[in-house]
Amino acid sequence: MSRLVMKFGGTSVADLERIRRVARLVAAEVAAGKQVAVVVSAMSGKTNELVAWTDGAGRAAEGLAESDAEYDAVVASGEQVTAGLLAMTLRNMGHDARSWMGWQVPIITDEAHGRARIDDIPADNLLAAFDKGEIAVIAGFQGVTREGRIATLGRGGSDTSAVAIAAAVGGSCDIYTDVDGVYTTDPRIEQKARKLARISYEEMLEMASLGAKVLQTRSVELAMAQRVPVRVLSSFVEPGEAPGQGTIVCDEEEIVEKRIVSGVAYSRDEAKITLLGLPDHPGVSSTIFSRLADANVNVDMIVQSRARTSDIANMEFTVGKRDAGRAMEIVNAVKAEIGFEDATVNEDVAKVSVIGVGMRSHAGVAKTMFGALAEKGVNIQVISTSEIKISVLIDAAYTELAVRALHAAYGLDKL
Amino acid sequence: MSRLVMKFGGTSVADLERIRRVARLVAAEVAAGKQVAVVVSAMSGKTNELVAWTDGAGRAAEGLAESDAEYDAVVASGEQVTAGLLAMTLRNMGHDARSWMGWQVPIITDEAHGRARIDDIPADNLLAAFDKGEIAVIAGFQGVTREGRIATLGRGGSDTSAVAIAAAVGGSCDIYTDVDGVYTTDPRIEQKARKLARISYEEMLEMASLGAKVLQTRSVELAMAQRVPVRVLSSFVEPGEAPGQGTIVCDEEEIVEKRIVSGVAYSRDEAKITLLGLPDHPGVSSTIFSRLADANVNVDMIVQSRARTSDIANMEFTVGKRDAGRAMEIVNAVKAEIGFEDATVNEDVAKVSVIGVGMRSHAGVAKTMFGALAEKGVNIQVISTSEIKISVLIDAAYTELAVRALHAAYGLDKL
Repeated sequence: MSRLVMKFGGTSVADLERIRRVARLVAAEVAAGKQVAVVVSAMSGKTNELVAWTDGAGRAAEGLAESDAEYDAVVASGEQVTAGLLAMTLRNMGHDARSWMGWQVPIITDEAHGRARIDDIPADNLLAAFDKGEIAVIAGFQGVTREGRIATLGRGGSDTSAVAIAAAVGGSCDIYTDVDGVYTTDPRIEQKARKLARISYEEMLEMASLGAKVLQTRSVELAMAQRVPVRVLSSFVEPGEAPGQGTIVCDEEEIVEKRIVSGVAYSRDEAKITLLGLPDHPGVSSTIFSRLADANVNVDMIVQSRARTSDIANMEFTVGKRDAGRAMEIVNAVKAEIGFEDATVNEDVAKVSVIGVGMRSHAGVAKTMFGALAEKGVNIQVISTSEIKISVLIDAAYTELAVRALHAAYGLDKL
Repeated sequence: MSRLVMKFGGTSVADLERIRRVARLVAAEVAAGKQVAVVVSAMSGKTNELVAWTDGAGRAAEGLAESDAEYDAVVASGEQVTAGLLAMTLRNMGHDARSWMGWQVPIITDEAHGRARIDDIPADNLLAAFDKGEIAVIAGFQGVTREGRIATLGRGGSDTSAVAIAAAVGGSCDIYTDVDGVYTTDPRIEQKARKLARISYEEMLEMASLGAKVLQTRSVELAMAQRVPVRVLSSFVEPGEAPGQGTIVCDEEEIVEKRIVSGVAYSRDEAKITLLGLPDHPGVSSTIFSRLADANVNVDMIVQSRARTSDIANMEFTVGKRDAGRAMEIVNAVKAEIGFEDATVNEDVAKVSVIGVGMRSHAGVAKTMFGALAEKGVNIQVISTSEIKISVLIDAAYTELAVRALHAAYGLDKL
């Protein structure tokens, strides 16, 4: 009997009517003969309400405080409610169902409260439930530490819960959301965006990391590592209507029609920090970036430039916007030690990326990108590349223009 | 080192400002050298919101459905939130504190979801926390079954949680609420009501059973059985202000100033059912009351009367108002079998009671009661008595009048 984990996000379970819609989708899979586990998020808005309370109760605003085990206890309650309500709704429809909290499954995590990682999911309880013909409704986003404290997986963590459970029980994973699949780019920016029938794990991982909000990055890493078949599809279907095929996230080898570029992603969550008049000698970068790493500030793109006639360099790098203030404090704290002239921060930047496994074997992808942007007068501030993506940092005002230009340049509207 | 369990109800933790006020009260007890556990209810209004969702999700409206394990999972989330927020607030004030859910303590209950009883509270974890100098903030109203499901104790169950924990750790129990103690009667009805410095367990139990809302009946039973010293006092004090002495609930022997009557209680939650023209032969009452018991309908007061010239009797009995419809269905279902003429229900009734351990040794208490009511023209419909209380059922419109008349008749305004 095939096993399926269905995951529903906050907008899909926002009220009782939507929970009933979810129950019908679950019932259809059970009727199709599958053993089903369902992973649910908190009703939309609830997590924000709970987080606001923890802020008010004195949770340290900056970084992770010791109170984070309490933060987790508070915030995990949102998923507990949804799991109970969906299990009740399914029972009321005549199905055998029960809710499972993270500690009941158990979903065992490390001790990093507020951003915990799943260590282990012993599958015995869930498999026993399947054997009884019971639908397992699991609270997403949460687990339990080996010390028995509630831990949460960080925002969007329910995707990771779902993929990890699918890996544990040997099933596939359907992620239901408010869009009907993964698109070549954000349809709110480019109406010609096309839904992809399939996308490789690697591409999906880059898309998620580079700003596409459809799946949490860590859930894709996990799916890729464990080879869990993932599908992204919409829960917003009318009674009796099928949810469609969505987008299948799978191994590259399973994709017949190869594309050079699969999508264009963008993110406005970056801030660019520029250090001017930096002495160009060994150890300078090391000092700066090790201090930032010590403070848990992730640095993304880095570029260093030197005037030909000088031994003075400039350096630019990007950090997450919410880390920008802290990064500037750290940079200014080492100013005397390193001896640069000035540090500035620019939050009016956006990162636009093209992603595709085809880049590995095709030259000319960068040329097309830079050509398309130049033609529209978009100035490139920083560039970073990997085997399957090219990202550029540009003035935020040009984001939509750049996304549309690149979408057209790679023929993504003609898929 | 003395151990104290402090319990705060929903209005005492209704928002973050009130939670901070609670934290200050807790801190004052810690500063006084006590080992402190705190039991909290859900923020007021939250439980109602959660219950409404479970109703909407199809929880059977009548009686206890199989979905009640899910009901418990949903509803218990309210206390989880408060426990986490209070622990954070205490930590933020520099105290060592952590939250404990029912399953973490563990507070082990039976399987009667929605109205579970506590079977056992192994105290090891809490005692270890005390040894570390840690304040234990415990989610009230909830426990865990031996099968590992969340169970709730029924409305007001946090009082019972607190008393049971006090018994388990060998401490006393302070119940903080929105009034500053137990009064001779409801001060909203009789302004001359006086706060009692002490009340015996037995009297408090009758007061709670007979309508005084200050403590949950089961918590008083438990305190009496385990000889847990209980105090009722107000959490609504300004910063720096002491909460006062409240009312001590204790053994009768510890009360120096004996009173004949300690209080007047009332309840408007009763409905009176009258069966007219009942054949007066053995087995009739047995049939009716065994059917009602089978349907979980509690019968309180019963009176049977017979016309001197006839072998036809009338019977009157009271049930809880919310059970009245079901009771009438049951009664009408046995009408043919038993052969009575008619059954009527009257919901416009109130039960007014006088309570006092002094009744055991003093005659004339009933005489005073009936005299005072007669003088005000209050007709008595049904009477029931126990060793330490007399209750009368009257027309609901006379409730306030009767309460005030009895309060004066026993001199309770002159304590």
